[in-house]
Amino acid sequence: MLINNLSIIGVGLIGGSLARALRKAKLVGRVTGCNRSEETLKKAVELDVIDDYFLNISEAVRDADVIIIGTPLSVSEKVLPKLADSMMVNAILTDVGSVKGGIINAARETLAEKFPNFVPGHPIAGTEKNGVEASYEDLFVNHRVILTPLKETSPNAHKLVTQMWESVGAEVVNLDVKHHDEVLAATSHLPHMLAYALVDCLAGMQERDEIFKYAAGGFADFTRIASSSPEMWHDICFSNREALIRTLEMFSSHIDDIKLAIEKSESDELLKIFRRAKEVRDKFNKEKK
Amino acid sequence: MLINNLSIIGVGLIGGSLARALRKAKLVGRVTGCNRSEETLKKAVELDVIDDYFLNISEAVRDADVIIIGTPLSVSEKVLPKLADSMMVNAILTDVGSVKGGIINAARETLAEKFPNFVPGHPIAGTEKNGVEASYEDLFVNHRVILTPLKETSPNAHKLVTQMWESVGAEVVNLDVKHHDEVLAATSHLPHMLAYALVDCLAGMQERDEIFKYAAGGFADFTRIASSSPEMWHDICFSNREALIRTLEMFSSHIDDIKLAIEKSESDELLKIFRRAKEVRDKFNKEKK
Repeated sequence: MLINNLSIIGVGLIGGSLARALRKAKLVGRVTGCNRSEETLKKAVELDVIDDYFLNISEAVRDADVIIIGTPLSVSEKVLPKLADSMMVNAILTDVGSVKGGIINAARETLAEKFPNFVPGHPIAGTEKNGVEASYEDLFVNHRVILTPLKETSPNAHKLVTQMWESVGAEVVNLDVKHHDEVLAATSHLPHMLAYALVDCLAGMQERDEIFKYAAGGFADFTRIASSSPEMWHDICFSNREALIRTLEMFSSHIDDIKLAIEKSESDELLKIFRRAKEVRDKFNKEKK
Repeated sequence: MLINNLSIIGVGLIGGSLARALRKAKLVGRVTGCNRSEETLKKAVELDVIDDYFLNISEAVRDADVIIIGTPLSVSEKVLPKLADSMMVNAILTDVGSVKGGIINAARETLAEKFPNFVPGHPIAGTEKNGVEASYEDLFVNHRVILTPLKETSPNAHKLVTQMWESVGAEVVNLDVKHHDEVLAATSHLPHMLAYALVDCLAGMQERDEIFKYAAGGFADFTRIASSSPEMWHDICFSNREALIRTLEMFSSHIDDIKLAIEKSESDELLKIFRRAKEVRDKFNKEKK
């Protein structure tokens, strides 16, 4: 048994999928859930994702060997003080947040002598759906999980969290915190902003009905992520504010370059941009295959 | 037999797929191809997409009842004078270009008394691949084909082109020319600009290698269309210049709104944008199902 008592704070797509996968692999004894909504917890018991639950965080983590924070980013920092008070001194804590800087700063302050037990994590997996109903045991298979251990992080804690993710099929990689937040701003946070902005832009146009009528497959792929949780993305934006603003500005200047090339009939310049992008995208495709 | 002699100028993904579909449905007698590259034409004969070919447009269209212009936009206008001279007086002409304003203006001038035979068309189908090797007979099944007939357009020509597309599984709709170009700027041309700009932006960043390493599924979907033909999209940009620039400006102001809301910590405003977009996108999803 890898984990005797697992406690999941925030039983949603990620926490629920991890519990399902660990149970299927028979790597976990008891799984306890904690959530703001009791309805969700009842659902999670019904779906056999968790064994039991508490609405109170302190009770939910009291016996836990491993605690997963699976809440939205804005909630994660708020649960830390309660965890600090009630988690066992040797319990291992990890999270699944898309931005790492904020939670780490908060954890360093709040967890005090238990901070080395915290292994910040971010599984690069998910869909535009959320909630425990959307969870499934194979979500992490062949996906990357990024851990951003600190110099204070306990090697044993780091090792166990690594084993946990590898045992559910993920590939674990370690990144520096700042680096993680910058890379994710570019690969994930920016595309979500573009999808939201595009749908909102088209919805505001005069021809709106026809626009959505004639939208083809490319558009559907492109904007699928605009169906993601507004609340989750709101939190991500504010958690990764500086990196995201820098990335948005960089993107805007690339759009301006394209617009200018069209306006000024700079045929060669426009071709150069498109060819450069196609070459990179084709290469990306090959590497992923 | 719907069409005795079909001539395809520009045997690529669209022209090739149409020929395959019409042949499979036994709706066409002879299919003649014409292309700049003889290699492509030999390939098309090998693949049984066309029966024979000419490198010279005048010869290729001399016996044709129906002529499809399947060339890139920048080439289409150049082939019109040759068609005007050599097509039969009752031959029906259509095209498959993504922008309709330019070719229609050119055709009105060039085709003169044969202009009523021209039925401007645009199948909303395609992939990021191109070339006759990528063509397949089911490409148009359940896809829309937009026709933009003019007041001068012959009702018979319009009827035959409609039948041709319907017979290969497409749904034909008619739109006003200007309307078509504006709607397509929003639903297709803008997303392609965003995909090219995004890939180019990320490729220019310091963390470039890691960025592409950690890019997940959403990113892959989002940028798939950046693998599209740079030459084709270059032509589309200049053909639909005004509508595209307007649309790019509108999009940029939406991105600025998001950036400003993050910068100024306008939590409610950001949530409002994301929720509005999600609602529209979810609705789009339901309607497409």
